[in-house]
Amino acid sequence: MDAPIGVFDSGIGGLTVAKEIMRQLPGESLVYFGDTARVPYGSKSKKTVCKYSRQIAKFLLTQKVKAIVIACNTASALAMEELEEMVDVPVIDVVQPGARMAAASTRNNKIGILGTRSTIKSGIYERYLHKINPELTVVSKACPLFVPLVEEGLFEDRITEDVVGRYLHDMKEYEIDALVLGCTHYPLLRGVIGREMGEDVKLVNPAYETAKTLKDMLKENELLASGQNKGEHKFFVSDGVEQFLSFANSILPYSVEQTTVIDIESY
Amino acid sequence: MDAPIGVFDSGIGGLTVAKEIMRQLPGESLVYFGDTARVPYGSKSKKTVCKYSRQIAKFLLTQKVKAIVIACNTASALAMEELEEMVDVPVIDVVQPGARMAAASTRNNKIGILGTRSTIKSGIYERYLHKINPELTVVSKACPLFVPLVEEGLFEDRITEDVVGRYLHDMKEYEIDALVLGCTHYPLLRGVIGREMGEDVKLVNPAYETAKTLKDMLKENELLASGQNKGEHKFFVSDGVEQFLSFANSILPYSVEQTTVIDIESY
Repeated sequence: MDAPIGVFDSGIGGLTVAKEIMRQLPGESLVYFGDTARVPYGSKSKKTVCKYSRQIAKFLLTQKVKAIVIACNTASALAMEELEEMVDVPVIDVVQPGARMAAASTRNNKIGILGTRSTIKSGIYERYLHKINPELTVVSKACPLFVPLVEEGLFEDRITEDVVGRYLHDMKEYEIDALVLGCTHYPLLRGVIGREMGEDVKLVNPAYETAKTLKDMLKENELLASGQNKGEHKFFVSDGVEQFLSFANSILPYSVEQTTVIDIESY
Repeated sequence: MDAPIGVFDSGIGGLTVAKEIMRQLPGESLVYFGDTARVPYGSKSKKTVCKYSRQIAKFLLTQKVKAIVIACNTASALAMEELEEMVDVPVIDVVQPGARMAAASTRNNKIGILGTRSTIKSGIYERYLHKINPELTVVSKACPLFVPLVEEGLFEDRITEDVVGRYLHDMKEYEIDALVLGCTHYPLLRGVIGREMGEDVKLVNPAYETAKTLKDMLKENELLASGQNKGEHKFFVSDGVEQFLSFANSILPYSVEQTTVIDIESY
């Protein structure tokens, strides 16, 4: 089925999920929406994040998408159920695939979760993990400085090492052996996080698991693109900030030349 | 004139301006609006910040305000002219009062400006400063990590010292002797910034200067509140986040018991 897949995020972070989908499903076309006018979602309430997610889903449906991927941990945590009820196409979130992978990876049943304030406060990872295995110990920590550090480009820096050391202190105390990077920006800090935690701790990147889940779902529902062509992608944003294009071009495997600004508040 | 004064910001930062107005004008009533659903403005485009500011001004006019204070450096930088044209009541911004104070304070004619990405990119401080004195050397620097550090409560911390040292490196090279804290959150880091720059550098807090400018303007236009009563204040937000109330109660001289959530997108 040659309709595109809708992918959305509060801003640019979800491009890491889009990239993984393009890699695992090169024949699929994507319609990406980044809510650059209202970014970030991580410090906002459930009510507001649900409202924003509904507006975005309405917009994506005007693009005739065959499935929607919520490429944002906060929106996955707060708006997944509501979107599933609202739309007729399958919805994939980033939280459940990450939780499944973490549960499958741990050997000592101790899992760590890093995320934004809203994701951590929602308790969503704990809920999914305990549904899989009630015996799991889950240690979670909000890391509000990680996104601005990534956006300042401080991937490898003494300041980042200090901040990571501070946030991960509890994780080390509890001797977790699987750690979910529960925000799309965090995999960009995996170098520093990996060194801090040591090589015995498996770092889970939900972007990779999400693309895999999407692929399985499309197969199962006979929704895979039929042709042998490469997918064609469109990018929409709610605010025309330069940062979006430069980030897109720094991480995606091909050159993004155009983004279209839409008035998301009118949906 | 007993109508209230409208004060707005992208979120909680403008409360530092509201506090200064309450201190200098205890008889005035305030209607404060914090755009907590769309915060922050500092990384957004002029078009988007103007649109948000127009919606807020429309809301404040429904509250019959006699003047509007833009208690946000980014909105002052990007939307001041547009709001002045749009509304019939006087508009006070935070940038011009801060620029005037900096120009009056410097002895060696070298001034530093710290602000968000959008404020610095707008070049607004340079424009106002060069209008006052074309001979001034102005060194400006965007400090995107300051707001998240303040919101993490790291006012006095080794990480904050490191970040401040990094951002202020150029300011020290240029030997500026007046430094504008050009974002409402930054005065909360004045301890660390002051130690880094040394005591010969005057730190300018636009909140203080803005309240003073407002007072002069109300007097001149015979708009001061007539009674001997204390002002009564109302607080509105676009997202009901707990952070707002706790920040308000930590910095304001009296207890804020209630905030009203409004749908700002409908204005």
